[in-house]
Amino acid sequence: MMILKNEIKIIGFDADDTLWVNETYYQDAEKQFCNVLKEYVSPETASRELFKTETRNLPYYGYGIKAFTLSLLETAMTISKQELPQDKIHEILAIAKTMIDKPVELLEGVEDVLQQLKTAGYRLIVATKGDLLDQERKLEKSGIEKYFHHIEIMSDKQERNYEKLLNHLDIAPVEFLMIGNSVKSDILPVITLGGNAIHVPFHTTWAHEQVEDTRAYNFKTVETIRQIPDVLNG
Amino acid sequence: MMILKNEIKIIGFDADDTLWVNETYYQDAEKQFCNVLKEYVSPETASRELFKTETRNLPYYGYGIKAFTLSLLETAMTISKQELPQDKIHEILAIAKTMIDKPVELLEGVEDVLQQLKTAGYRLIVATKGDLLDQERKLEKSGIEKYFHHIEIMSDKQERNYEKLLNHLDIAPVEFLMIGNSVKSDILPVITLGGNAIHVPFHTTWAHEQVEDTRAYNFKTVETIRQIPDVLNG
Repeated sequence: MMILKNEIKIIGFDADDTLWVNETYYQDAEKQFCNVLKEYVSPETASRELFKTETRNLPYYGYGIKAFTLSLLETAMTISKQELPQDKIHEILAIAKTMIDKPVELLEGVEDVLQQLKTAGYRLIVATKGDLLDQERKLEKSGIEKYFHHIEIMSDKQERNYEKLLNHLDIAPVEFLMIGNSVKSDILPVITLGGNAIHVPFHTTWAHEQVEDTRAYNFKTVETIRQIPDVLNG
Repeated sequence: MMILKNEIKIIGFDADDTLWVNETYYQDAEKQFCNVLKEYVSPETASRELFKTETRNLPYYGYGIKAFTLSLLETAMTISKQELPQDKIHEILAIAKTMIDKPVELLEGVEDVLQQLKTAGYRLIVATKGDLLDQERKLEKSGIEKYFHHIEIMSDKQERNYEKLLNHLDIAPVEFLMIGNSVKSDILPVITLGGNAIHVPFHTTWAHEQVEDTRAYNFKTVETIRQIPDVLNG
């Protein structure tokens, strides 16, 4: 995939697991959740039921920490056959609130790269599916807010959502570069639209974001975000 | 307040209770919620406790339907002294999901006015605090999506949030006109920034949005959204 570097005006960064650690916290929360339910079912069953609930609730609740919390509660009630003691419900709500209060752990190299790209004249935005309030809070805590023009919240990251985004940003697809860890959400839809995308894998990916086969697509993958400026200069 | 009509480029519309009915549905949901809890406390006490929980949760959950649902659950558990039967928890979750599935009832005159303003060359956006997914769904159902350039989700509607919005839209405050039913959220912060705002009251306002005294501010109020084009032409 050729990156038409001279044409790029706006660079969109996925937030969770691209700028900072996220999936790790969700997986920790899921472990705690399975532990709360251990007298009812095995951790594997609890995880599988949670994933089913999350998938079923997506059209209602969308993405982010509040959707996750509501799905935790619904799963727990199903698993306990409606006999979950309320102290366990409180434990589950506490798991979620703790996630909101977690420190933000920037991924290695992120701030250097943002600094370089901003200095080079690109307009940088965050393009994410989470809750706006939660993402704004993370951006403030992280100290990298100053590099971004704004946060763009997307209800989903399919082709039509990126079309809306580009329309809203008033740019052509070739003028947009998306950087993210999810091939399914950050890379393929942007490339299909005729935009640019660079994949920066995170070590773990939520099952919902996994794609089976990407051989038909030709996109650039880098090992670390530190390589992005070289791709744009090289 | 003089509206500098020649300078206005972008008109932001609040969504709930400005474009369509919303607070009425929340109040219905609250009545159903109070009814679920009637064996524990009076409706007045249930409402008061809910409002306290919502206010306490605002910094965690922000605005919108999911935040409301989480606050309903938390309030019910507190009121029942942790002894709420799970069928009542299910009833509460069902109240919330029913709200998501409600039809969208446009307020009188809205579509005509959007049509006129768009034809007159203004760029129209929705500027709202709710959940993006929920607001997108309402916009699609309502049939007025085609008039809007995009939906802007704001984590709050204070002065600093409007500052971010104007920066993101790349316009000066005088080039922006905000239209909404909440004096506190849609009018005062925009005027303080040097922007334009027109207040279109809805017949009922959530307690959190009420302001005590607005005599110090000089802003335009119209009885119905139908008067907006006249204000801009007059």
